[in-house]
Amino acid sequence: METINRLESEVRGYVRSFPVKFKTAKANHMVDEDGNDYLDFFSGAGALNYGHNDEVMKKALLEYIESDGVTHGLDMATVQKSIFLKTFEDVVMKPRNMEYKIQFPGPTGTNAVEAALKIARKVKQREGVLFFTNAYHGMTLGALAVTGNASKRGGAGVNMPGAIPMPYSGYFGKGRDTADDLEMLLKNSSSGLEKPAAIILETVQGEGGINVADFDWLKKIEKLCHEHDMLLIVDDIQAGVGRTGPFFSFEPAGIKPDIITVSKSLSGYGLPLAITMIRPELDIWNPGEHNGTFRGFNHAFVTATAALNEYWRDDKLEKKVLRQSEHVMTRMQGIIDAHTRFKAELRGRGFFIGMDCENAELADEIAAECFKHRLILETAGPNDNVMKVMPPLITPDEDLDAGLDIIEKAVHTVLERNGLLNTAA
Amino acid sequence: METINRLESEVRGYVRSFPVKFKTAKANHMVDEDGNDYLDFFSGAGALNYGHNDEVMKKALLEYIESDGVTHGLDMATVQKSIFLKTFEDVVMKPRNMEYKIQFPGPTGTNAVEAALKIARKVKQREGVLFFTNAYHGMTLGALAVTGNASKRGGAGVNMPGAIPMPYSGYFGKGRDTADDLEMLLKNSSSGLEKPAAIILETVQGEGGINVADFDWLKKIEKLCHEHDMLLIVDDIQAGVGRTGPFFSFEPAGIKPDIITVSKSLSGYGLPLAITMIRPELDIWNPGEHNGTFRGFNHAFVTATAALNEYWRDDKLEKKVLRQSEHVMTRMQGIIDAHTRFKAELRGRGFFIGMDCENAELADEIAAECFKHRLILETAGPNDNVMKVMPPLITPDEDLDAGLDIIEKAVHTVLERNGLLNTAA
Amino acid sequence: METINRLESEVRGYVRSFPVKFKTAKANHMVDEDGNDYLDFFSGAGALNYGHNDEVMKKALLEYIESDGVTHGLDMATVQKSIFLKTFEDVVMKPRNMEYKIQFPGPTGTNAVEAALKIARKVKQREGVLFFTNAYHGMTLGALAVTGNASKRGGAGVNMPGAIPMPYSGYFGKGRDTADDLEMLLKNSSSGLEKPAAIILETVQGEGGINVADFDWLKKIEKLCHEHDMLLIVDDIQAGVGRTGPFFSFEPAGIKPDIITVSKSLSGYGLPLAITMIRPELDIWNPGEHNGTFRGFNHAFVTATAALNEYWRDDKLEKKVLRQSEHVMTRMQGIIDAHTRFKAELRGRGFFIGMDCENAELADEIAAECFKHRLILETAGPNDNVMKVMPPLITPDEDLDAGLDIIEKAVHTVLERNGLLNTAA
Amino acid sequence: METINRLESEVRGYVRSFPVKFKTAKANHMVDEDGNDYLDFFSGAGALNYGHNDEVMKKALLEYIESDGVTHGLDMATVQKSIFLKTFEDVVMKPRNMEYKIQFPGPTGTNAVEAALKIARKVKQREGVLFFTNAYHGMTLGALAVTGNASKRGGAGVNMPGAIPMPYSGYFGKGRDTADDLEMLLKNSSSGLEKPAAIILETVQGEGGINVADFDWLKKIEKLCHEHDMLLIVDDIQAGVGRTGPFFSFEPAGIKPDIITVSKSLSGYGLPLAITMIRPELDIWNPGEHNGTFRGFNHAFVTATAALNEYWRDDKLEKKVLRQSEHVMTRMQGIIDAHTRFKAELRGRGFFIGMDCENAELADEIAAECFKHRLILETAGPNDNVMKVMPPLITPDEDLDAGLDIIEKAVHTVLERNGLLNTAA
Repeated sequence: METINRLESEVRGYVRSFPVKFKTAKANHMVDEDGNDYLDFFSGAGALNYGHNDEVMKKALLEYIESDGVTHGLDMATVQKSIFLKTFEDVVMKPRNMEYKIQFPGPTGTNAVEAALKIARKVKQREGVLFFTNAYHGMTLGALAVTGNASKRGGAGVNMPGAIPMPYSGYFGKGRDTADDLEMLLKNSSSGLEKPAAIILETVQGEGGINVADFDWLKKIEKLCHEHDMLLIVDDIQAGVGRTGPFFSFEPAGIKPDIITVSKSLSGYGLPLAITMIRPELDIWNPGEHNGTFRGFNHAFVTATAALNEYWRDDKLEKKVLRQSEHVMTRMQGIIDAHTRFKAELRGRGFFIGMDCENAELADEIAAECFKHRLILETAGPNDNVMKVMPPLITPDEDLDAGLDIIEKAVHTVLERNGLLNTAA
Repeated sequence: METINRLESEVRGYVRSFPVKFKTAKANHMVDEDGNDYLDFFSGAGALNYGHNDEVMKKALLEYIESDGVTHGLDMATVQKSIFLKTFEDVVMKPRNMEYKIQFPGPTGTNAVEAALKIARKVKQREGVLFFTNAYHGMTLGALAVTGNASKRGGAGVNMPGAIPMPYSGYFGKGRDTADDLEMLLKNSSSGLEKPAAIILETVQGEGGINVADFDWLKKIEKLCHEHDMLLIVDDIQAGVGRTGPFFSFEPAGIKPDIITVSKSLSGYGLPLAITMIRPELDIWNPGEHNGTFRGFNHAFVTATAALNEYWRDDKLEKKVLRQSEHVMTRMQGIIDAHTRFKAELRGRGFFIGMDCENAELADEIAAECFKHRLILETAGPNDNVMKVMPPLITPDEDLDAGLDIIEKAVHTVLERNGLLNTAA
Repeated sequence: METINRLESEVRGYVRSFPVKFKTAKANHMVDEDGNDYLDFFSGAGALNYGHNDEVMKKALLEYIESDGVTHGLDMATVQKSIFLKTFEDVVMKPRNMEYKIQFPGPTGTNAVEAALKIARKVKQREGVLFFTNAYHGMTLGALAVTGNASKRGGAGVNMPGAIPMPYSGYFGKGRDTADDLEMLLKNSSSGLEKPAAIILETVQGEGGINVADFDWLKKIEKLCHEHDMLLIVDDIQAGVGRTGPFFSFEPAGIKPDIITVSKSLSGYGLPLAITMIRPELDIWNPGEHNGTFRGFNHAFVTATAALNEYWRDDKLEKKVLRQSEHVMTRMQGIIDAHTRFKAELRGRGFFIGMDCENAELADEIAAECFKHRLILETAGPNDNVMKVMPPLITPDEDLDAGLDIIEKAVHTVLERNGLLNTAA
Repeated sequence: METINRLESEVRGYVRSFPVKFKTAKANHMVDEDGNDYLDFFSGAGALNYGHNDEVMKKALLEYIESDGVTHGLDMATVQKSIFLKTFEDVVMKPRNMEYKIQFPGPTGTNAVEAALKIARKVKQREGVLFFTNAYHGMTLGALAVTGNASKRGGAGVNMPGAIPMPYSGYFGKGRDTADDLEMLLKNSSSGLEKPAAIILETVQGEGGINVADFDWLKKIEKLCHEHDMLLIVDDIQAGVGRTGPFFSFEPAGIKPDIITVSKSLSGYGLPLAITMIRPELDIWNPGEHNGTFRGFNHAFVTATAALNEYWRDDKLEKKVLRQSEHVMTRMQGIIDAHTRFKAELRGRGFFIGMDCENAELADEIAAECFKHRLILETAGPNDNVMKVMPPLITPDEDLDAGLDIIEKAVHTVLERNGLLNTAA
């Protein structure tokens, strides 16, 4: 640990919440260097939806490496890339009647967002992109410009033009539809809102605190995009690949984005991989106009292919997650209801669940208490006020309950410590 | 191939120069799906300095995967990350008397550049960053802003503030020192040049066409940085990790950058990995101010550690490269000299060598002719006018000569085809 | 007319609405080259609040010119500038307990706005300035950035950073307080709204269509400025100098702006003059940091001084305007009420009155019909949907009624022409 | 004076160099409130080329005011505006074979520059504008962006995109042609210099320190504009209207700008007036796309018309200025030559002359010493290192010599005070 504290930049973060050195990991468990076992309700911030080191993917990866398959291919053609593309078409796109061109924009989510913003601006020849309060889209300058967090924005140190924040679904409370407000601004030629090239959104905001967009709101936003000649970009990097149940988070809302960004759990194994999906008629890139060294990381193609074949050729995983999600939501609501002085709101879809604590400090304390009992979970939201419950999708029922037991106890302990337990009736 | 052409975005590039599907690769050779063997003078654009699928690294990687070592760790502490940091300190920094904090800014070069620009602006509280003609620093918006190529810049579709181009070393020819010009602009408070936070540069510009900075010029730039309170960022993503001979390309110039970006061959195996090295007193990041999903890709730590141990605990590799470089330069100059109507200029350091063809189309034709004879090399420069010769550092002498033979023939063939062979005396 | 059409740029505007050549003007009347007399309900877009060529000011101006008083003084001290400043202090600032430093930022409103934005950003060291839907602050780049009109913004042809539009008072209708919305965005550190240096607003938006801010809303905005360390800039260029009754339009709201811009009727005689009033502790300009050729136009000081002495040493003018305003509003509401199929809304304060026609084309037609009958008035609003009624403050009762008679007839004529007259009961 | 110091903003400048209160002025003389007479070698920074309160213009102005001619006309047609336009066409444009549309962009130079930049960007649909080291184009944000002075730029407090500084004619000394350098950058598609919409320049930089562009350089810049599809904007606000001899400063260079800005001495009498001259085919403004309150200040039309009729129907004034200029240059060179330890360089054209002092403080001291002896002149240049000699064009020979006598003595006095007089041979 001393080595890391001495040599790694102050910017390091999670290591401060989880101050142990992890060594191995399997499925929904991690093990530290002293052999202690931790239950994982964090899933690598959404990059490990299938858990750690899945056996099927591992086998495929080992075989590929053993055979000296091309590791690094830039955007040259490789056998493995071709297989991945075909599998993605067969397993993901065709059954959903989707037609998109796939761009490999670099191996991380922020690369995928940058490419999405570029192509949107190139197509529409306009600079502006609307984003939403509490949005998180990445840390490189283009993606950061459409990210809400003030501390992260401040890190830019430079003007970030072309990004305009708008209130997200439900931002001003129930009675108000922020899509209607946006429509009024778009229709008024003197509103000061320059017609944007695109709107970028998450259907459920992860880093922003598990804010869930209404499906009606999503449909209205899609309609506004059509009416005002803007592109709709859905950033499905954290919410996608099953996190909310279906492969894409926007499926149940019935919308058809113009551009989709996917990363995190796409490779299935935690290997860096990202794609930007572009409606074919918008794919007006010139060859090489956007490039990058690690666009063709074939190990990730191997595991991504295995993951698609293993988990998405039927709807078992989706159904399992939706069933278990109800259980988790019910138990968590019970925890809230049992403590009348613990003001908290439950939100979420699938295994993308948040408990928003009115008193933000409680969220941090509860998460720390959970970690003491070897449950890994994180906080999110503007003030780290939301406990994020994001177990791997493959978590068995008994581990879910084991984790929820730890949460239940941690809430009790922390409320007691803060003198917030219910007074005896 | 049909799959790729049908499904992958039009932005794909290298696949157009090398229209075969590669399947396996080893050391300085690649093999396509039909079993044809290719000599690699391209090294994954600098990401495969040790060649493909190095045996030592492969073994370490297989063992790590077999043992279910943590794959994806965000910026949590892992045993493997700690080992990598300690090895980097021992093998790279200590012997060079370097003291830097290491930031994992995301797994690609452009992430490292974004982090470098952010921290520079944060430290100096100024927006401007000077970059140089023909520079290439990446494709995300912040890095793109300091990249010279007009086509790539055009892809941004949005104003990119805070970046100011300046003529590179030797840009206006021999008699003129562009560092002196810059000094005049910096000293004149009415020059219109707002005092920048930093200067970012490559010591040898790769994508820009193998332009080699004079060491004196580099020293002057460093001096200007000190005198005018600017930070010096050396982007050693392509030129570093031995490409020019020494580990860092700037070592022989005797300069000490404030910030260094390293990626590409850092992992040694073609796995995505990047670091931003920051002088300790500049490491004023707040925790989590810059984050990202794939900052802790432990497979890359495994191979990077193996690479450092294997190749940089002594100076054998550096010496080998410098020795072979002389040979390559001599032969290539011979090729140029043998064809008086072939106007070309040879430039380079180590295995970072370019042949700049006055007639840009010849460069492309020669590269294509080489590929026909199963030698992989690429062109670079503003008009793809420079043939880049970048063999893996581990290339044996006989393969160097085999490649040079192919180049020699290709030059002859192409010149003949264009009616540019020497007329008989 | 042919000369003007041939030589003047296509950008000319009002000449298209009023296609006659004016020669002389007096009080609230203008006379064309053929001797036709026009009633003026336009007041030079607010620059002629005292009417044309006021006798007292005219006399003072003639005497000054005769005596060879300094005409053009840059920002050198002149006797006349000193007199103006003292008079402004005595007549305007002291009776209102105001303490401000006066900057002469150049002779037009847009210069005053530019200086206001500059000093606000300099003081707060932040780039952002909030402005409101339908705002108009000027045509130079800094002022244009905080102007809502899309066509005018489009004229910039360049990114205008640092300006963020927000919904104005009443923008979403009665039940919603946009100041409360703004508070929610300011309080949320992840809203994406970067903390601005200042808020700039008009208390009544002129070009935006005579939108009148609630006094409570203004007070809330002022409070937000204090709570969030932003400066409040009131642009009183069109609404000030008595247009709404009192000298400053914000007086009845009881707010104290940090910075105030005044121009248009400040000189009283239509001569170019503008000031930026700055709270003394904010006046951190360096000498000469903002300069300009026509900052010291002494003719304007002469007439401005005469205007202050003549009209603002007592409250007669203010009372007259408020009394007459009621009469005008009543008669105009009557016109609207008499035509049930004429959907129009009346808004305004003092002699700053607008009739907002649901069918925007009617507004233009009515204005044109009025001009036929020699009444000069203009339309405003995002679609030129608002007929602006802005008579000189010195207009006698009988001329007000004469003008209103013309409007009444014009409304009737236009509605009849469009088949919109009431059907017989 | 106390009033001004108490009430006027700290931004005031010239009043600090000339700390007296001026009352009247005539021709090339100013008189303070105590009746002291000053010789004017400053000409209101170029706004008073015909001196103060010219009798012919004064008579015309008085008559116009007496007759209640329209004072303030926005951009409505007035008799007087029409007369001005016709006179400008007959006296200025026709004899020079010039065909331009005239825009009234607001009454000051900075308005004219803003309009020029807007229309250039609108025509070319590109954001960038090249400007030159030491340039001065105005204080509103668009114009400020193309102004070199760091202190003035710093006043903006906000990113100013779209402006790129380039070295001016002779910036790097005699042997180097900065137009050739620019050509290299424009021709290289990877130079990082995004293709600009326009180049804006002064033929002689006034505020920048009387830097005189070579005519060959101007021609090369014009050629580059044609070859690279950029517009050439000549800002003739300070150098125009006879300051260098001919009406336009660029006439002897034989170039034809696409857009010309004129202001300062255009009204002749020190009244605010500015025009932007646009080649007819570039006049693609929409009606009202750029507007402003004081575009139709008819008093200025009256005096401007009188000035054109009086001074530009023949070439007497031009010839007089060129003749006298030689005399002034000769005497000033003599002053420099007589003091071998006074390192100074003489530069200029017409009555736009500067003495550049290697020791910048001497320039200030000499100017102050001159003022003590009642000669008004100013310093300019990046460090106020250049004494500007700008007498009204109508200055009689004897007053020129009287002023030069004062300068001569002031130089002697200041050098003596600083121990810099020649040592006896």
